[in-house]
Amino acid sequence: MRVSQLSAASGVPVPTIKYYLREGLLPAGEQTSATRAEYGEGHVRRLRLIRALLEVGRLPIASIRKVITAVDDESLGLHQVLGTAHYAIAPSIESHPDHEDWRRARAETDRLIADLGWRIHPNAPTRDELAQAVLTLGQLGVPVTRESLRPYAEAATDLVEHEIGAIPVDGSREAAVEALVVGTVVHGRVLDVMRRLAHESASARFFDVSEG
Amino acid sequence: MRVSQLSAASGVPVPTIKYYLREGLLPAGEQTSATRAEYGEGHVRRLRLIRALLEVGRLPIASIRKVITAVDDESLGLHQVLGTAHYAIAPSIESHPDHEDWRRARAETDRLIADLGWRIHPNAPTRDELAQAVLTLGQLGVPVTRESLRPYAEAATDLVEHEIGAIPVDGSREAAVEALVVGTVVHGRVLDVMRRLAHESASARFFDVSEG
Repeated sequence: MRVSQLSAASGVPVPTIKYYLREGLLPAGEQTSATRAEYGEGHVRRLRLIRALLEVGRLPIASIRKVITAVDDESLGLHQVLGTAHYAIAPSIESHPDHEDWRRARAETDRLIADLGWRIHPNAPTRDELAQAVLTLGQLGVPVTRESLRPYAEAATDLVEHEIGAIPVDGSREAAVEALVVGTVVHGRVLDVMRRLAHESASARFFDVSEG
Repeated sequence: MRVSQLSAASGVPVPTIKYYLREGLLPAGEQTSATRAEYGEGHVRRLRLIRALLEVGRLPIASIRKVITAVDDESLGLHQVLGTAHYAIAPSIESHPDHEDWRRARAETDRLIADLGWRIHPNAPTRDELAQAVLTLGQLGVPVTRESLRPYAEAATDLVEHEIGAIPVDGSREAAVEALVVGTVVHGRVLDVMRRLAHESASARFFDVSEG
């Protein structure tokens, strides 16, 4: 199909498609003449992945490029591609190894992960991210212990087991990788928004407002 | 205490404190002479709230100002303050009521909320947010139904019940409001990072990599 048809099939405007081509997010079409290129189903699909990371994942273009590069690098296994996606999603956290409170929060986090038997890279940015949340809650007078964190860990485990199990690993590598990356990003948003919905509802009930 | 002591007590640098004062995030101290103001425990506490929203919630200053204004407005009940915080946290979603797929995703979302008996404002931005995630998963070939969404809703309900129940409603309004707002923001981050940790661990196991 031509670029105008690719635009119609994907719902992405032609100038945006050209921008993705320039940015290296979308592979070039097959050049059939000096001014014409042919695009295929792979391009439609790649556009959907980009839009999902952009609109639902709200990742900046630079992070999307890192994820796409990992998706396209066939020397990487699924776990490595997922790791790249996780690093691209994770916010940059300022670690404070010289502060005692920080060290304690980080140690508590590491012990929880060990207790759960989770296999997490020692340098995973998520360790610092969790430590920061633990530290902040403690500073605000909300006591955080491994026990109080456990329900979050258990809920996350149950949901993720199901998501990973649903990934089609016997089809193409591309399909599996895309499902894994999208699963991480979009299901994360689903859980986050569900929690805020549940929070609003529980608050309406708890504080007994007549109009929810 | 003087501004230098407030800085020492809160760990927030003096120029940053002055910036928050100018931006109206922190109430002015009690002026004791032309060049001196006294700050109290309320200021230390307010600084912690600002830092939590900024560092853990990653909210922009304009959103933090909206939340703080609601916290300080004693005519608002706890549920209204929480609503303000939710609106400040929610990303802006482009709604597409003219697209059939969008309408279907949004209708599915509304039905799930009704099925669950949740009390959610008809114009809550979270409805569109969930609809967008449902639409995106569908476009990526991940079938989403009310049944597949239910485990997320149930996990969210359990966690939130506990969080809301832990809010100290018999103390000062300020303490309750802060706990509610911080609970929404920081516990949301806790759950999100737990899910990514669980995802990494499940992926390490599922794809059987020797080095997690």
